[in-house]
Amino acid sequence: MSSSKTIRRLEVSSPVPADIDIANAVEPLLISEIAESLGLRPEHYDLYGKYKAKVLLSVLDELKKSEDGYYVVVGGITPTPLGEGKSTTTVGLCQALGAFLDKKVVTCIRQPSQGPTFGIKGGAAGGGYSQVIPMDEFNLHLTGDIHAITAANNLLAAAVDTRIFHEASQSDKALFNRLCPPNKQGQRSFADIMFRRLKKLGISKSNPDDLTPEEVKKFVRLDIDPDSITWRRVMDINDRFLRKITVGQGPEEKGMVRETGFDISVASEIMAVLALTTSLSDMRERLGRMVIGNSKSGEPITADDLGIGGALTVLMKDAIHPTLMQTLEGTPVLVHAGPFANIAHGNSSIVADKIAIKLVGKGGFVITEAGFGADIGTEKFMNIKSRYSGLTPQCAIVVATIRALKMHGGGPEVVAGRPLDHAYLNENVALVEAGCVNLVRHITNTKLYGVNVVVAINKFATDTDAEMNAVRNAALAAGAFDAVVCTHHAHGGKGAVDLGLAVQRACESHSKPLKFLYPLDLSIKEKIEAIAKSYGATGVEYSEQAEKQIEVYIKQGFSDLPICMAKTQYSFSHIPAQKGAPEGFVLPIRDVRASIGAGFIYPLVGTMSTMPGLPTRPCFFDIDIDITSGKVLGLS
Amino acid sequence: MSSSKTIRRLEVSSPVPADIDIANAVEPLLISEIAESLGLRPEHYDLYGKYKAKVLLSVLDELKKSEDGYYVVVGGITPTPLGEGKSTTTVGLCQALGAFLDKKVVTCIRQPSQGPTFGIKGGAAGGGYSQVIPMDEFNLHLTGDIHAITAANNLLAAAVDTRIFHEASQSDKALFNRLCPPNKQGQRSFADIMFRRLKKLGISKSNPDDLTPEEVKKFVRLDIDPDSITWRRVMDINDRFLRKITVGQGPEEKGMVRETGFDISVASEIMAVLALTTSLSDMRERLGRMVIGNSKSGEPITADDLGIGGALTVLMKDAIHPTLMQTLEGTPVLVHAGPFANIAHGNSSIVADKIAIKLVGKGGFVITEAGFGADIGTEKFMNIKSRYSGLTPQCAIVVATIRALKMHGGGPEVVAGRPLDHAYLNENVALVEAGCVNLVRHITNTKLYGVNVVVAINKFATDTDAEMNAVRNAALAAGAFDAVVCTHHAHGGKGAVDLGLAVQRACESHSKPLKFLYPLDLSIKEKIEAIAKSYGATGVEYSEQAEKQIEVYIKQGFSDLPICMAKTQYSFSHIPAQKGAPEGFVLPIRDVRASIGAGFIYPLVGTMSTMPGLPTRPCFFDIDIDITSGKVLGLS
Repeated sequence: MSSSKTIRRLEVSSPVPADIDIANAVEPLLISEIAESLGLRPEHYDLYGKYKAKVLLSVLDELKKSEDGYYVVVGGITPTPLGEGKSTTTVGLCQALGAFLDKKVVTCIRQPSQGPTFGIKGGAAGGGYSQVIPMDEFNLHLTGDIHAITAANNLLAAAVDTRIFHEASQSDKALFNRLCPPNKQGQRSFADIMFRRLKKLGISKSNPDDLTPEEVKKFVRLDIDPDSITWRRVMDINDRFLRKITVGQGPEEKGMVRETGFDISVASEIMAVLALTTSLSDMRERLGRMVIGNSKSGEPITADDLGIGGALTVLMKDAIHPTLMQTLEGTPVLVHAGPFANIAHGNSSIVADKIAIKLVGKGGFVITEAGFGADIGTEKFMNIKSRYSGLTPQCAIVVATIRALKMHGGGPEVVAGRPLDHAYLNENVALVEAGCVNLVRHITNTKLYGVNVVVAINKFATDTDAEMNAVRNAALAAGAFDAVVCTHHAHGGKGAVDLGLAVQRACESHSKPLKFLYPLDLSIKEKIEAIAKSYGATGVEYSEQAEKQIEVYIKQGFSDLPICMAKTQYSFSHIPAQKGAPEGFVLPIRDVRASIGAGFIYPLVGTMSTMPGLPTRPCFFDIDIDITSGKVLGLS
Repeated sequence: MSSSKTIRRLEVSSPVPADIDIANAVEPLLISEIAESLGLRPEHYDLYGKYKAKVLLSVLDELKKSEDGYYVVVGGITPTPLGEGKSTTTVGLCQALGAFLDKKVVTCIRQPSQGPTFGIKGGAAGGGYSQVIPMDEFNLHLTGDIHAITAANNLLAAAVDTRIFHEASQSDKALFNRLCPPNKQGQRSFADIMFRRLKKLGISKSNPDDLTPEEVKKFVRLDIDPDSITWRRVMDINDRFLRKITVGQGPEEKGMVRETGFDISVASEIMAVLALTTSLSDMRERLGRMVIGNSKSGEPITADDLGIGGALTVLMKDAIHPTLMQTLEGTPVLVHAGPFANIAHGNSSIVADKIAIKLVGKGGFVITEAGFGADIGTEKFMNIKSRYSGLTPQCAIVVATIRALKMHGGGPEVVAGRPLDHAYLNENVALVEAGCVNLVRHITNTKLYGVNVVVAINKFATDTDAEMNAVRNAALAAGAFDAVVCTHHAHGGKGAVDLGLAVQRACESHSKPLKFLYPLDLSIKEKIEAIAKSYGATGVEYSEQAEKQIEVYIKQGFSDLPICMAKTQYSFSHIPAQKGAPEGFVLPIRDVRASIGAGFIYPLVGTMSTMPGLPTRPCFFDIDIDITSGKVLGLS
């Protein structure tokens, strides 16, 4: 496709102003211009206002024969609770490649969860002079994908409880009569979707009237075991009071109460499906085979058994198209899907990466971010996302900060909202050197996938040259392809030019195939143990519940799936306080769950919160609108 | 503004095909062409894909000096559970005015709730050859307004429970320290929004350190009485199991459990605010003064007391702009807001009507629909919506069907999903004549507002000339300006040309000011009684709870608000089975609630469900996507 340039030069101030002030000071380019710079024509996208557009999946058909660009994943060392600037580096690197090194580049990042924007965390559009804009639209509804996920997830949840309710009060005959009602001529027919359940039951009849009473019973009774239901409701709000609730207490529900709860929407399996799907028809199938629980006889019950896989796809039909936005320097960004990395696989969508790789074409760059530390983010990028996408990365970046390395070297605890200890604000090379064990393990682990590893040292104003040299030496000694200091937060793309050049060399000199950490045909336990070993564990300990669930999944035929560890992001191990590169521990598996539609088994290592709460003074106190200009105030 | 024509001629088939087939057979015009036909330039709207656009409120400033078009409200007689084609008539009339009578016209209708689309009801885009298209986009996410309402409503709900939780476990000092934390220099400051609460408390200090301990206590402790909380959570899903739930059962919530429930999103007060607001600044103020419950000492606690009114406005900032769509014949439609008419005021937004009236200009027509029968829909249009908008309608339409009139005349019960009794399929003039008492009372009531009343007889294939003549005679005798048979369902705009001409005459010959049913300075009870009288009631009976609440609202200073009756749509009275024009009954008021932000008091007449359920075989069984074309299948 032909292309045009949309670069915008930034004027930077020092000290760096607040993120929202930087973002509001720049007039974004029309998104149609950004689209044009990628060679997209108006029929390839749908506008959502002036600064966002959904790039239609159909563009992939047209680009089938184009060559692929380079594919770079951005991971990080084990972070402090403040975050080490992984999104910022992803954005800054693209600004460098696009605006200073004259490369075609697309940033692929996750859509942030809206709930935490009003809680503690603030937005996720990068920071300083490396941001996605307009940052309010990025952090708020975007183009409605998470809302669609919430709707689809909760429609399925309502269908589950209501189906149990109707089955409890009706005879087989009454259920059949309602599910396949006779028309005016007295003839019954199956809805198309019902043939999926009939097939599963081994019934090949197409006329409802031919079913035997035994077959009618099998067809109409899902016989869901309420205690087996794993499908929870979701909401994109930090609402801790919904973590555990009892539903069905109204008089019309006749005492059919049940304990359940809400997760935050990005924890929905449907978010994972969106991130891992490869086409509309693939999404239809994945949504249909999502398992909500078991029948009383132990059979998995799917969305298609409930007759709802098609409706869920209809609710998700717009969400499957990634959203095009732009960086502060006018380079293109595709925002799509946002599963959490500690409870799901934590990577943006396959379809966005696939589109981007074709749009940048040969010699161009797609920079995609993996959530949290490389132990969970990059690992899942390789073993789950890349396995499903078939795409091969050439380079993996590990973002490191002096702050986090000092913490790993034994520095005092870093707590969000509390002032930093002086250890983090003054030179301490020994502490940095001690902390490099964490970086080294991330480098070693990442190299095993066959990619070139580039370390990006995200420099803060208080970091010294001696400290940065220590990191660089440790990284190169560990086999990193390069280790580069960058200042994109303070300087925009200009501050990441060296990183861009290193990444370019790393990609151009790469020639190895992608190697996975484990083949899929290992047993569930062997796969878990392979990942645990990469954490530094000597072994794995399964709870009784975990053992039981593994047996269930083997019996149900799900043992060929990849593994998605639900583990804290604050340590290689399961204990957040274990910094550095812990060794010799036994990894405890509390429970094992499955996202059959998304396509992975997820062992729970410790207790992960799937619904955040609001603090005493949430961010929302500062968020308001300027009535005159219509601009959003106080978003951070 | 200049304008161009976008008319599309329909080829109609007989018998009328399924709604989705008619809708899918027509290629919609680009919405930019529809916008251009109204004289809108690209800077006046934001595209949402190719067939939807949000018309920006700022266009009102530019049009301030334009003359107003005619303003017509569409109500109906008391309906059967099947609905009498009010939306269809609203759409068909506009197709007639725009495509056959060469008038500038805008249809203003409500956005349908997405939940019921997957339950029993199907969509709400009109029907037959009078529809809004694309009907799948109309019935599904549209441009995300209801999702924004859900998010804002539930953020407030989470803030309420979390605030009670934090107040319960912290001292005044700890709360103050968190709400107004010292900066690096040790100085505290109030967030802008906190000055609203300080003002309410009569504290005029601007430095937090100047507050006395007593003032600190008043400032930090909302002291919400959990039993007084009227703010519930919402979801746009038919999820009956959420009607009554217990929240806070997780161990971290330390036993702070509470009984509450979910309503469907369109029942949120924020939906009513969206429908009744007149500008961005007005919406900010309304959202801030929404009352969630009382303090233990009986003071109303508002969203601004919680510090969240600004954040709610930010979540609603795009939702305030109405969505432009089109009819099957290419006339423009503004879709905006969708409060239920039985539990809220049931009318589309004021801002959409205001924009439309300026866009059509002098001699043009704005046709806006009021929900359910004229007893609730038109009444609330006049006494609530028009009072807040300041707009004056010239003409009110009352849609009637032979089917519903026969029911009012004593015909057998009409039940959704069951075959119609033969009384409804064969000529029975006597039954029709007997039923006209219902129509006559709607005409008489509506005339009192000073508008010309036109009866639209929505003809079905089985209706006879004699039956229709009976209706026409009764309508004219009751003082209707005209009564016209229309066949827009079968013929599109062509079938409503006579109705269009009658409406034109009614508007052109109108000269009276708008008269309200009651002035605002009557007492709450006198206002309720004025409305009850219009229903045919001889009096009103208040429960103890209702009496108590009325006292509370008087004490809190809310007695000047208009009244929004929450009453069944199936009868003038509170008893759905009382058809025709019941008289001599006493209207029972079970409870009285208030939507202070939206701006009305709503007495509950009987028990209204605010959360629908799913039937044994919901519509979702038939809804799927055609993988090849991407088209939605099975939506009705």
